[in-house]
Amino acid sequence: MSQWLNNWTEGAFLLGIAMIIGQVILAIIAFFIARSIGTRLIRGTFSKMERQKNMSAGRVQTLQKLSVNAFSYVLIFVFITIVISIFGLNPTGLIAGAGVIGLAIGFGAQGLVSDVVTGFFLLLEKQIDVDDYVTAGGVDGVVEEVGLRTTQIRGFDGTLHFIPNRDISSVSNHSRGNMRALVDISISYDDNIDHAIAVLQQACDRIAAEDPTIKEGPNVIGVQGLGDSDVVLRIIAKTENMAQWAVERKLRKELKEALDANNIEIPFPHQVYIEK
Amino acid sequence: MSQWLNNWTEGAFLLGIAMIIGQVILAIIAFFIARSIGTRLIRGTFSKMERQKNMSAGRVQTLQKLSVNAFSYVLIFVFITIVISIFGLNPTGLIAGAGVIGLAIGFGAQGLVSDVVTGFFLLLEKQIDVDDYVTAGGVDGVVEEVGLRTTQIRGFDGTLHFIPNRDISSVSNHSRGNMRALVDISISYDDNIDHAIAVLQQACDRIAAEDPTIKEGPNVIGVQGLGDSDVVLRIIAKTENMAQWAVERKLRKELKEALDANNIEIPFPHQVYIEK
Amino acid sequence: MSQWLNNWTEGAFLLGIAMIIGQVILAIIAFFIARSIGTRLIRGTFSKMERQKNMSAGRVQTLQKLSVNAFSYVLIFVFITIVISIFGLNPTGLIAGAGVIGLAIGFGAQGLVSDVVTGFFLLLEKQIDVDDYVTAGGVDGVVEEVGLRTTQIRGFDGTLHFIPNRDISSVSNHSRGNMRALVDISISYDDNIDHAIAVLQQACDRIAAEDPTIKEGPNVIGVQGLGDSDVVLRIIAKTENMAQWAVERKLRKELKEALDANNIEIPFPHQVYIEK
Amino acid sequence: MSQWLNNWTEGAFLLGIAMIIGQVILAIIAFFIARSIGTRLIRGTFSKMERQKNMSAGRVQTLQKLSVNAFSYVLIFVFITIVISIFGLNPTGLIAGAGVIGLAIGFGAQGLVSDVVTGFFLLLEKQIDVDDYVTAGGVDGVVEEVGLRTTQIRGFDGTLHFIPNRDISSVSNHSRGNMRALVDISISYDDNIDHAIAVLQQACDRIAAEDPTIKEGPNVIGVQGLGDSDVVLRIIAKTENMAQWAVERKLRKELKEALDANNIEIPFPHQVYIEK
Amino acid sequence: MSQWLNNWTEGAFLLGIAMIIGQVILAIIAFFIARSIGTRLIRGTFSKMERQKNMSAGRVQTLQKLSVNAFSYVLIFVFITIVISIFGLNPTGLIAGAGVIGLAIGFGAQGLVSDVVTGFFLLLEKQIDVDDYVTAGGVDGVVEEVGLRTTQIRGFDGTLHFIPNRDISSVSNHSRGNMRALVDISISYDDNIDHAIAVLQQACDRIAAEDPTIKEGPNVIGVQGLGDSDVVLRIIAKTENMAQWAVERKLRKELKEALDANNIEIPFPHQVYIEK
Amino acid sequence: MSQWLNNWTEGAFLLGIAMIIGQVILAIIAFFIARSIGTRLIRGTFSKMERQKNMSAGRVQTLQKLSVNAFSYVLIFVFITIVISIFGLNPTGLIAGAGVIGLAIGFGAQGLVSDVVTGFFLLLEKQIDVDDYVTAGGVDGVVEEVGLRTTQIRGFDGTLHFIPNRDISSVSNHSRGNMRALVDISISYDDNIDHAIAVLQQACDRIAAEDPTIKEGPNVIGVQGLGDSDVVLRIIAKTENMAQWAVERKLRKELKEALDANNIEIPFPHQVYIEK
Amino acid sequence: MSQWLNNWTEGAFLLGIAMIIGQVILAIIAFFIARSIGTRLIRGTFSKMERQKNMSAGRVQTLQKLSVNAFSYVLIFVFITIVISIFGLNPTGLIAGAGVIGLAIGFGAQGLVSDVVTGFFLLLEKQIDVDDYVTAGGVDGVVEEVGLRTTQIRGFDGTLHFIPNRDISSVSNHSRGNMRALVDISISYDDNIDHAIAVLQQACDRIAAEDPTIKEGPNVIGVQGLGDSDVVLRIIAKTENMAQWAVERKLRKELKEALDANNIEIPFPHQVYIEK
Repeated sequence: MSQWLNNWTEGAFLLGIAMIIGQVILAIIAFFIARSIGTRLIRGTFSKMERQKNMSAGRVQTLQKLSVNAFSYVLIFVFITIVISIFGLNPTGLIAGAGVIGLAIGFGAQGLVSDVVTGFFLLLEKQIDVDDYVTAGGVDGVVEEVGLRTTQIRGFDGTLHFIPNRDISSVSNHSRGNMRALVDISISYDDNIDHAIAVLQQACDRIAAEDPTIKEGPNVIGVQGLGDSDVVLRIIAKTENMAQWAVERKLRKELKEALDANNIEIPFPHQVYIEK
Repeated sequence: MSQWLNNWTEGAFLLGIAMIIGQVILAIIAFFIARSIGTRLIRGTFSKMERQKNMSAGRVQTLQKLSVNAFSYVLIFVFITIVISIFGLNPTGLIAGAGVIGLAIGFGAQGLVSDVVTGFFLLLEKQIDVDDYVTAGGVDGVVEEVGLRTTQIRGFDGTLHFIPNRDISSVSNHSRGNMRALVDISISYDDNIDHAIAVLQQACDRIAAEDPTIKEGPNVIGVQGLGDSDVVLRIIAKTENMAQWAVERKLRKELKEALDANNIEIPFPHQVYIEK
Repeated sequence: MSQWLNNWTEGAFLLGIAMIIGQVILAIIAFFIARSIGTRLIRGTFSKMERQKNMSAGRVQTLQKLSVNAFSYVLIFVFITIVISIFGLNPTGLIAGAGVIGLAIGFGAQGLVSDVVTGFFLLLEKQIDVDDYVTAGGVDGVVEEVGLRTTQIRGFDGTLHFIPNRDISSVSNHSRGNMRALVDISISYDDNIDHAIAVLQQACDRIAAEDPTIKEGPNVIGVQGLGDSDVVLRIIAKTENMAQWAVERKLRKELKEALDANNIEIPFPHQVYIEK
Repeated sequence: MSQWLNNWTEGAFLLGIAMIIGQVILAIIAFFIARSIGTRLIRGTFSKMERQKNMSAGRVQTLQKLSVNAFSYVLIFVFITIVISIFGLNPTGLIAGAGVIGLAIGFGAQGLVSDVVTGFFLLLEKQIDVDDYVTAGGVDGVVEEVGLRTTQIRGFDGTLHFIPNRDISSVSNHSRGNMRALVDISISYDDNIDHAIAVLQQACDRIAAEDPTIKEGPNVIGVQGLGDSDVVLRIIAKTENMAQWAVERKLRKELKEALDANNIEIPFPHQVYIEK
Repeated sequence: MSQWLNNWTEGAFLLGIAMIIGQVILAIIAFFIARSIGTRLIRGTFSKMERQKNMSAGRVQTLQKLSVNAFSYVLIFVFITIVISIFGLNPTGLIAGAGVIGLAIGFGAQGLVSDVVTGFFLLLEKQIDVDDYVTAGGVDGVVEEVGLRTTQIRGFDGTLHFIPNRDISSVSNHSRGNMRALVDISISYDDNIDHAIAVLQQACDRIAAEDPTIKEGPNVIGVQGLGDSDVVLRIIAKTENMAQWAVERKLRKELKEALDANNIEIPFPHQVYIEK
Repeated sequence: MSQWLNNWTEGAFLLGIAMIIGQVILAIIAFFIARSIGTRLIRGTFSKMERQKNMSAGRVQTLQKLSVNAFSYVLIFVFITIVISIFGLNPTGLIAGAGVIGLAIGFGAQGLVSDVVTGFFLLLEKQIDVDDYVTAGGVDGVVEEVGLRTTQIRGFDGTLHFIPNRDISSVSNHSRGNMRALVDISISYDDNIDHAIAVLQQACDRIAAEDPTIKEGPNVIGVQGLGDSDVVLRIIAKTENMAQWAVERKLRKELKEALDANNIEIPFPHQVYIEK
Repeated sequence: MSQWLNNWTEGAFLLGIAMIIGQVILAIIAFFIARSIGTRLIRGTFSKMERQKNMSAGRVQTLQKLSVNAFSYVLIFVFITIVISIFGLNPTGLIAGAGVIGLAIGFGAQGLVSDVVTGFFLLLEKQIDVDDYVTAGGVDGVVEEVGLRTTQIRGFDGTLHFIPNRDISSVSNHSRGNMRALVDISISYDDNIDHAIAVLQQACDRIAAEDPTIKEGPNVIGVQGLGDSDVVLRIIAKTENMAQWAVERKLRKELKEALDANNIEIPFPHQVYIEK
């Protein structure tokens, strides 16, 4: 009977050994295949990038090495845990150790995912197009490039802003339809408001007739405020996109001259003096 | 007995091999079916989108490729873990590796979910309707579109704001009922307050009679402040929605003219000078 | 013996197959029951909502479809994992994949839970009642509705604010008891303070006798500040709730007139000029 | 032998079925007991609350229904997972689904726990007592109630502030000991500083003798600043708690009169004019 | 043979039942021991606290009840899961349910741990000592008590600030060595700078000789600014800790008198007037 | 039969003991190999760093010791969990304990990963090059070094800023193309706007002809504002990168002189005086 | 046969009991060894700290007791879970309970890890050296000590700031190379700009010749602004580190005197008066 046991034990033992060796060999083969494919993929990506964006060979070298290393570390870790579990040992401790690093990476890299997700929808919903004038991520300017990770906006002062898409939550697109031109003109408390409005409206109508970029108005909409020293009248117009500033500048000049011509004063600050 | 063992072992072994092969074949078939269905679904979605929103073919191509790739990577990963576990190997290491990426994606994409959840309730609770004038996400304007992910608001200066719904926590809807018109008028410390109030209230009553957009008032409610150089009187009215600004402008003009007509001064800033 | 083995193997095999098939059938039945119940519940909820809130049929359609889809996806996922585990395969990979989506949803939807939890306590602790005048979530106004998810506050300018309850941390309820009316009156550095206080207190007493909304005071509590050009006296009263503004306006008018009547100056800003 | 097997199989099978049925029955009984106890507990809590806080029956109804529902959903979920695992199926998919909701709830409800934890220590460390004058959570006023979840503070203007304890991190308690009264008095650049200090100190000593709420000082501590037009002297006193404002008002009045009596000028702003 | 089976089955069955009953009894005993020890510990802690901090019996009652309840709930939960697993049922559902509450508690209580960890290092690194004058957590004052959870700071106006240690990140300790006294004195653009510096330095030297709390300087370090109407000279000294304000006050008085004595003007604001 | 059992038991027992001892020996060997390799790697890295960055030997010693210790702790922990699981004990409690530390480390170290991820893309997308003038992380200056963890920017005042890459979200690169020079010039309300524009444009054209760094303009684009006392004209030019400030300075000087030469006034602030 | 079974059962049972007892004894031994080592280590650390930092014995006692207690609690918990799992009971409930505390600790202690990680790189990258003048964590001053957890910075007013390293993200080091001295000087609109620049540059050259701490310049770089009442000229120099303030003071004094000597006016604010 103990003979039987020995045989059985021996057979099972040999079978076990054989299976372990087979599995280890399989794992090693899988490891080398995965590593070779991965490394080749990374190298290919970088050499393509080098040609396309003409980056310096040194910088490409640095980044490629970093990527290959990171990939290799991950692969080696997966390999070791598999081998350990083949030998029947419990890799929980090892995995717990790696989980710490993984957690840090997961948190650290979430920004990257946020970038791509936001970028995806920026493109999909056509919120931003190249050459649009937008306000996004606290920056004002004309869009030069919309990528999956970053959007490049050229500020009006010539600065090129690189904004990771995650920082672009609300987009204000100033290139989607007619824009408003708005000018506030002050007149004195002594002037007749109706007269001033008539004079300003006349000038507005003349400008509207001259300027084809004006789509609507300009109209004097009334008394916007009763200031310390002045009565403020507001003039509003609708203009072609991007023509709003030119129209505002024109309106300021022409309306000031119209008031001058009609002897309506644009008042300086006033103060009443009581001498003691 | 060892014969029996051998037979048993052999039988079990063959059975095991057969089962493994069967399972692998099943997994492969499931993989190809899932992949084919998924890819077709994605392509369908994008070609529909291309027709509806007339997006450029290039952009659709980019986004579709990205989606198909992401889907394939996920599918391949699921497939590999299943195959590994069929062979009796422990895929924990692999899953731990994937968990890192998953964690990053989960965190990165939570904004998207937030958008849809908020959007769902924006629609369900009718907080926002197209053409409402609202303040939401730090932006003022008229709603052009309420979607599950983004809300489009047209600012009064013509800008089109795209606001992800997650940024819309509190909504201030200015198109739900009558609005208040509020005007503060200053009179001099030397003028009789009762007289001034009577004059202003008379003018208010005349305006109320003329203007059908005024629903209540306007009334002079009393002395709102004792300023450095002026006594401030407040006038309040209820108007039809969106008529509040026109009423305020009218009130400012008419009340100023009423005070002028009654020789009540709107004072400039005063200062007492003590010469030394 | 091998006969016995075959029989045993065969029997176990057939039993296994039978059990698998039985379990799959059970799972399918459970799936269809769950789906049918869930769908009916969602439809019922929405059609009730449609009648109650008179929402447009189109919008209800959209939201209902989204809800049914979401429910179906979850159900299908649960079904697939159960079937996979019935076949003895390891669904860990699949679950890991789903966990990513789950994580995103869990994070994205936490705001919703926060809303309900806060809403529950807002109602339970009676912090807010309809028609209370409150400051909450950065908004001022009268409460129109307190729900489990959102609170609606009508601003004094007519705007309707929808505030998700999670944004309501501190609530300032201005409708719980008598309110304070506070007026600061300036007198000149040359005037006798005791005399001015006497004059003001006399006027205060007269107002207190006239106005039944005043519960306590008003009293001149003393010299609140020594300003650049004036000595500031503070008057405080307790009034009925919501009467504080009317009382303050009345106090300002009456006290100003009392000072005028007693030749006590409310001073303009002073400046000493040194000519060179 | 196959007979033996059949018997064995059959016996084990019957035993298994019996055990499953037994377990299911146990689970069902446990479910109904738990549900009945839970529901009764919730109802009891709410009816007690209704009597104590005289809440409207409608509101109690709403909250009670919500609580019972939430409790039932949780219980049903626990029951289903137990039944599923009794049948030998893998409830992982179901639990993963529930985990998503659980995660959302856990995150959403953490504020509640924060409230109770902070509230516990607020009470334990006696940081706040009813009737203390405190600054907490950005609000100033007298404490009306300290609860485990919220603290109620009555502002000086009559507003009742409800502050969730989690918003109370730092507490500034103004009712723990004597308070400081601080008055800054300006004198002219032309006045003798020593003389002015002597005059002010004399007045201070007189006030200290008269007023029993003053515990220390008031003392002129010296030249606090050399302003644009004035030399600023600072007077400091220690007073009984809550008497500091009355003492400051008294000091301002008396010190101003003391300076007047000694012909020391409190200067208006000065400016040198250079005419061109 | 079936006899054998029956025997075996029966024996195993009885053994199983016996083991289950034994385990349940063990669990019940462990539960009562743990509960009795825990309750006694909590009661002891609170009655000690009641004596030491003379808290009202009512408040102690409330907190003690809360603690005992919380402890009991946790113990009951642990007990139930153990009993369930003894009966061979899967407590995963129950644990998932509890995990939700646990998560909320874990997040809610992390502040508490933060307090203790920070408190530990505040004490260990001697950043704060009782009677130090510090700025921490946005509050200024003298430390009254440093605990593991909260630090008590007495503000200069008498307020007692309770600051949870987690809010104390950077500590600015003003009681660790000599302090700087800094005074800026303005002279006219017409005065000779070298002469003014000489006069001021002379006064500084005299003060330094008189005052033993001054450790270094005071020295006129030069022209700190060219203001609108004045040339600003800066004087710096090193003083004993907490003597800096008295020295600054003394410097202001003495330097002003020194300039007066030498006919150097401290200028009022200047303005050039162009009449039109 | 009991003999057989004893044999079997004994054999299995011995086999088990043998396997345990074998596994422990394997684990110990693996431990020492891993430790030796790890320590050598760390030492090598630090001694290389010491040579390259000429750090003091003491500091290197400190950091190296810290690294070796951290590595050893992790290794010992992994070793212990493996040994415990070899003995058939459940290391869950130990791992739960370690998980707490791991969690803290994972959260604490995520910033580090964020740095490297952001750094990777800063380099890859060429957002920043050495010697670029950029605004990033709230700091302005010229880039001195871009690393994977930190970026060094030299401020214009000579300060060297070390910015961890995670703090660099949006990068504003001022060295990518021509820059804008912008000058606002005020003229009096009494001057003729057309004449002033003509004079300024003439001067602009002369400057453009002289200065090769100007690429476009400068042009007077019109009336930018109607100020309290002045009409504001805006002049804009495009210049070579980094020449914008010099051009602006030149423009200010030349335009001021051009206006002087043509008797066009740059007005001082105006005020109307009403004597009473 | 049943005899055989009994024997077998009995043997297995006894073997099981023996193994359980053996494991428990092993666990108890391991527990006492671990506890003794841990306690000794903690005591050693603290008594060393007591000698080095001369902390009061009482404080050391408190901290040591806290550390030993925390260590004991963790050890006891690990011990209990191991014993429970030896008895074949499921410790999941217990671990879930502990996980809650663990989670809280993990979150609460992450700041500590952040400190050490940041501290490690502060030292490694030599961002900060003792005696550097830096701006970090919102504080300005000279570094006194850089530790792994906190950095001590001595403010210029004598305050000692303790900054946890996690609060130090960007470091601005003002002690790494030459610094810039920058002075803006105003001249009147009536003065000739070229003449003023010549006068200022002459003075600059003289100062540069005299002062060896000046490395470059000072140079008048041109018209920095056209102010309300003045033309602003900017002078820039490069100086030795920490000499920038002295150079700026010297420049202000010398340039003011140079302008005086050449009768170039530094203008007071101007205003045009229009009397009415």
